Amino acid sequence: MTREELIGLMRHKRSFLCVGLDPDLRRLPPQLPQNTEGLHRFLHDIVLATTPYAVAYKVNTAFFEALGPAGFSLLHEIIGTVPSDTFLIADAKRGDIGNSAEQYAAAFFAPSGRPSRVDAVTVSPYMGHDSVMPFLAYPGKWTALLALTSNEGAVDFQLKKLDNGRYLFEEVLLTAQKWGSPDNLMFVAGATRPELLQRVRSLVPRHVLLVPGVGVQGGSLPDVCRAALTADGPVLVNVSRQVLYASSGANYAEAAARMAASYVREMNGYLSVVNA
Amino acid sequence: MTREELIGLMRHKRSFLCVGLDPDLRRLPPQLPQNTEGLHRFLHDIVLATTPYAVAYKVNTAFFEALGPAGFSLLHEIIGTVPSDTFLIADAKRGDIGNSAEQYAAAFFAPSGRPSRVDAVTVSPYMGHDSVMPFLAYPGKWTALLALTSNEGAVDFQLKKLDNGRYLFEEVLLTAQKWGSPDNLMFVAGATRPELLQRVRSLVPRHVLLVPGVGVQGGSLPDVCRAALTADGPVLVNVSRQVLYASSGANYAEAAARMAASYVREMNGYLSVVNA
Repeated sequence: MTREELIGLMRHKRSFLCVGLDPDLRRLPPQLPQNTEGLHRFLHDIVLATTPYAVAYKVNTAFFEALGPAGFSLLHEIIGTVPSDTFLIADAKRGDIGNSAEQYAAAFFAPSGRPSRVDAVTVSPYMGHDSVMPFLAYPGKWTALLALTSNEGAVDFQLKKLDNGRYLFEEVLLTAQKWGSPDNLMFVAGATRPELLQRVRSLVPRHVLLVPGVGVQGGSLPDVCRAALTADGPVLVNVSRQVLYASSGANYAEAAARMAASYVREMNGYLSVVNA
Repeated sequence: MTREELIGLMRHKRSFLCVGLDPDLRRLPPQLPQNTEGLHRFLHDIVLATTPYAVAYKVNTAFFEALGPAGFSLLHEIIGTVPSDTFLIADAKRGDIGNSAEQYAAAFFAPSGRPSRVDAVTVSPYMGHDSVMPFLAYPGKWTALLALTSNEGAVDFQLKKLDNGRYLFEEVLLTAQKWGSPDNLMFVAGATRPELLQRVRSLVPRHVLLVPGVGVQGGSLPDVCRAALTADGPVLVNVSRQVLYASSGANYAEAAARMAASYVREMNGYLSVVNA
């Protein structure tokens, strides 16, 4: 999906909501079979119910991998379930030397040599350019590079100051924007530190920002919009648990749709600033 | 496996060789079926032939993931093939926020709730302590944290100087050694910059160092030993392609064994310094 198509989708749906799919057996509604079949039904129902509201879905590979070989199959089934006119992110946070990075890029963008439905993969910057470039080599595909993450541990290294006066995450933004363009490179920047999110936006004014941390992690949508949403700077706001587990009962799908709808209503008030 | 057991194994085999298993269909000897069954036979033969020389094996998840669902099964079959008295590293370079990191740790250390054969997982430090601690929570298991990697891109961020005068990789070593101990935390430090490998060793004198980059990547065993092997500071030297693809013919297993044996002969000359 191109940047224009993604922005067009946001305009069409009046939304910049990304729904995160983190399947957790411990949180599966008790009405469903407590196995990967149950998870499949659950995720399928969630995707179906939230499609009117979500412009993007994000599959978190950690939760699928924890389910063993059945989880791997589930991941690929769910990737096939996500409507083709929504943006699909594999949240894998991969990062390895060149020849391994090529394999990871192929695993997500061209498994068994066939082009996949995955539009973007999240990638860690720690190992530098040759760990990222293989992902950027796929035409029409995106790399979502970690810059400033939403978790507590972001302070350990991302918020360390370099001897040039920049935070490490700022150095990542400035260095990595030379590796790709706003058409194939987006940055992950968390919602939990709005004042720093604003610095992210000022350093990469045109790149799409994938913003996790709204909801259970404590970030707020208005803060994110004020800090990062501009006429030329789109954001994708990811909400995972708050939508997925909006209800622990049989009405989980309706509850997820209601939660997604309420986010989208709130987003509407901010969308007018977007140049689209 | 405990630190003492790992050092005992090095002493017993007179070796600190780790053989990296990166299955690549493009490099599979032509005598074998050109599919995952062929890869299975290839890796099985390589492991069998090199067991007298290797104290550890490292499975590179990238190469398995690129094979799709069949690769996932292959990974678990190969993990089952590696002799139980060798150290087994899953080179996955994972790193995500706490609840996702818990899932990754479970995926490798306790898939489907059962303890696994995997002794260690490689983890990226970029997201900080809460992305690493879930791996360290498994008794008897190890976290191999990326510090200074062997690739060119290491210069982009790992070799940036902080305002406290330290390189980022030094900050990672100093910060992360508080998260674990030499009994459950090792560091990945590449062979390709021996002068910096020496700095790594001086900052973490007792931690096991997992050293990639010898062989195809250009690092040399004597340089690694002089820089990082001390009486109380063990190293695991990983060699992947140079052993795996020592011959492209039908004698691939014997050729791999010969290459592994020649490394081990060389290692013997350095092992006398180890306090074990």
